[in-house]
Amino acid sequence: MTIQRHPAVPRGFRDLGPEEMILRKSVIAKIESIFRRFGFDPIDTPSVELFEVMAGKYGEEAENKLMWRFKDPWGDREYALRYDLTVPLARYIAMHKDTPMPFKRYHIAPVWRHEEPQRGRYREFYQCDADIVGSPYPEADAEILLLAETIYRELGINGVKILINDRRILRGVFEKELGIENPLGVYRAIDKLDKIGVEGVRKELKSLGMSDSVIEKVLEVISMRMPLSEAISDLMRRYGSNEHVVSGARHLEEISSIVRSKNIVFDMSLVRGLDYYTGPIFEAITESVKIGSIGGGGRYDSLIELFTGVRTPATGFSIGLDRVIEVGLELGVFSYSRKTYTQVYVVIMERDKDILEYSLEVIRDLRENGINVSWDLMRRSHQKQREHARKLSIPVLIYIGKAEVTGNKVTVYLTESGEREVIERTSLVEYIKGKISQ
Amino acid sequence: MTIQRHPAVPRGFRDLGPEEMILRKSVIAKIESIFRRFGFDPIDTPSVELFEVMAGKYGEEAENKLMWRFKDPWGDREYALRYDLTVPLARYIAMHKDTPMPFKRYHIAPVWRHEEPQRGRYREFYQCDADIVGSPYPEADAEILLLAETIYRELGINGVKILINDRRILRGVFEKELGIENPLGVYRAIDKLDKIGVEGVRKELKSLGMSDSVIEKVLEVISMRMPLSEAISDLMRRYGSNEHVVSGARHLEEISSIVRSKNIVFDMSLVRGLDYYTGPIFEAITESVKIGSIGGGGRYDSLIELFTGVRTPATGFSIGLDRVIEVGLELGVFSYSRKTYTQVYVVIMERDKDILEYSLEVIRDLRENGINVSWDLMRRSHQKQREHARKLSIPVLIYIGKAEVTGNKVTVYLTESGEREVIERTSLVEYIKGKISQ
Repeated sequence: MTIQRHPAVPRGFRDLGPEEMILRKSVIAKIESIFRRFGFDPIDTPSVELFEVMAGKYGEEAENKLMWRFKDPWGDREYALRYDLTVPLARYIAMHKDTPMPFKRYHIAPVWRHEEPQRGRYREFYQCDADIVGSPYPEADAEILLLAETIYRELGINGVKILINDRRILRGVFEKELGIENPLGVYRAIDKLDKIGVEGVRKELKSLGMSDSVIEKVLEVISMRMPLSEAISDLMRRYGSNEHVVSGARHLEEISSIVRSKNIVFDMSLVRGLDYYTGPIFEAITESVKIGSIGGGGRYDSLIELFTGVRTPATGFSIGLDRVIEVGLELGVFSYSRKTYTQVYVVIMERDKDILEYSLEVIRDLRENGINVSWDLMRRSHQKQREHARKLSIPVLIYIGKAEVTGNKVTVYLTESGEREVIERTSLVEYIKGKISQ
Repeated sequence: MTIQRHPAVPRGFRDLGPEEMILRKSVIAKIESIFRRFGFDPIDTPSVELFEVMAGKYGEEAENKLMWRFKDPWGDREYALRYDLTVPLARYIAMHKDTPMPFKRYHIAPVWRHEEPQRGRYREFYQCDADIVGSPYPEADAEILLLAETIYRELGINGVKILINDRRILRGVFEKELGIENPLGVYRAIDKLDKIGVEGVRKELKSLGMSDSVIEKVLEVISMRMPLSEAISDLMRRYGSNEHVVSGARHLEEISSIVRSKNIVFDMSLVRGLDYYTGPIFEAITESVKIGSIGGGGRYDSLIELFTGVRTPATGFSIGLDRVIEVGLELGVFSYSRKTYTQVYVVIMERDKDILEYSLEVIRDLRENGINVSWDLMRRSHQKQREHARKLSIPVLIYIGKAEVTGNKVTVYLTESGEREVIERTSLVEYIKGKISQ
């Protein structure tokens, strides 16, 4: 065997220990329960997709610089690690033509992007996606926004705003009103507003060869930000004769009438990088923590058609799990409060055949009654066993020695209160259940 | 955008729809709850590892023919998709030196192997692993076996036998007793016994250039199969002066005294392919379904040392989730009984502003009370809405029309019983909870 003296993980990847996983699983469970309450059901798709399936969906930069592409080690096919959960959903729909519509699915799974690692940004990260396939109507987008709002609220992440814009409005304003023929570079510059500020955007636009007067108009336009309910009339007033803007604004108006929330904010600087969006686009931010977006999504009415040739509208939202956890920790609404799921540690007072046998029976009883139990596997002194249990903050210790075996009893010690009691074996399960459910 | 007319997934990969995922999630939840009852806690490790970390751990065939290796698309580093969850655990321990021992972790996650796809065998599949790091003692192996037995039993997979052998016994018998110098080829032949039968193994051994008399001895030896408790004395009688066999047998004897189960069967033909095992090795099979092993594991006392230079004993077991599900389905203990988590579908009788608003309030109320609710997002007739709800076998339908809005009521229809009742809105949540918990 090769000697490997410097074990490491690839850059941008990481291990998660029990404390992190226990928190993470509780956050996922919460998100998942909300997905289900809103009527979404789970699917899973492969981590590895054929590259050709993912090609041409995300934009050039994503495809060439961010996607983990690789050749089949045994052949010529080109694969890619899943870049998001949306294109795989579109492929799924194309391959499962009997799926009843509307199809409301959720998917909680890792995706891979070769981005520069930074706070809350990894090369392997979990997305929690909910999408509605089949409905072209604003109520589907509204349902998605209500879902996203509910998740952030119930997780306790306060001060979340969901920014909203519409690709049709962007098209109407930038292409028709401002006469920008190929707005992709402009969008890319606007997308950096958060990072590089207005001056940075001005500089980028200049480098694209745009005239000063158009640049100033772009900067004026993207400063438009207000509650969604107010934005509609403003858009109609400014661009009432522009059919693209009007169709986007009408759609947003219907969404607004269902969602009715002050936390949904129209923001003209929101452009979203991914190529596949066609209608409303969303992005969740929290102003209390500087970490970029904590979720986003939008409507993609043409993506599935690329696979099937049949128009199949769809809309969805993706929660960035890793950033949500980072934000929750910083805001103090999440914490690493638990090191283990173990509720009871059985301390064996002496290594003795009778004591061991009796202990194993007690352990089996507790486990069969749904209690999480550990015991000494290291042949340590009872002092060391107790130390180990305390290091993990296990709430209940059970001591078993000769006296306990003889009396068919156990001694129970509750870590937090310091309470110590001798309990009949026959009433132990009930006693413990009472203590750990408190 | 590229037109992709033939969407497909890579060979050996697959999509899982809601019905499959709902079953899968219930099986995983059961396994996970048992892991926790036995005192195991979750960790996660990256899907992508540095190739050098995985090199030299699994044997040559695995490394060169089965491992998904690939070059960094942007550099020279070589990566590999995770081949199992054991080597990543060893690396984790090496990189987290402050982990309290014993460390009992579980990990439920996909791994990737480039095997020929067949029934219950995919190129991406889930393993559910539990391992104990830090204990060299038989009680750790016993704990692992009790855990595995409990899982199969509580999942309802009857007739599972856990085969057991020990690498030291194999070494003692094949190298010392039979004088086979490099037993790897022999093990590989024996490993195929299930598939190719005794005659096949004989042929393979012959092709290795072994003499007929040694071949016959090998075939006699590997026919040894009996309950673990009986095997110890048999091994001592046959090989009592062989120190390797004796140390293995003594270890198995202590395991047996704790586990005491007739389902643990000593089997000399069990060799296990992976290079890293050093002591007891396990494999779970079910004789009622022809599908190969449904789980396996063993002790690997030297693996972590490869990374750290410090001896750190470890033992574990891996449940093959995909095969367990396949077996459960065939035995009829699992079934695809649920198409959706949705419990209530709200049928909107007419597209009318008041009805829609009232319906949205009812929906919000139900969801806020933990009930899983869907409603029409397709602007369909109420007949079509009902059809959709029935297609998904949603148990409760709520009809809301003008009369309901006026009376502040809803009409509830229970799919299974055909019961139909008009309910006050104020008592709706309670009523529904009573019906769906039945």
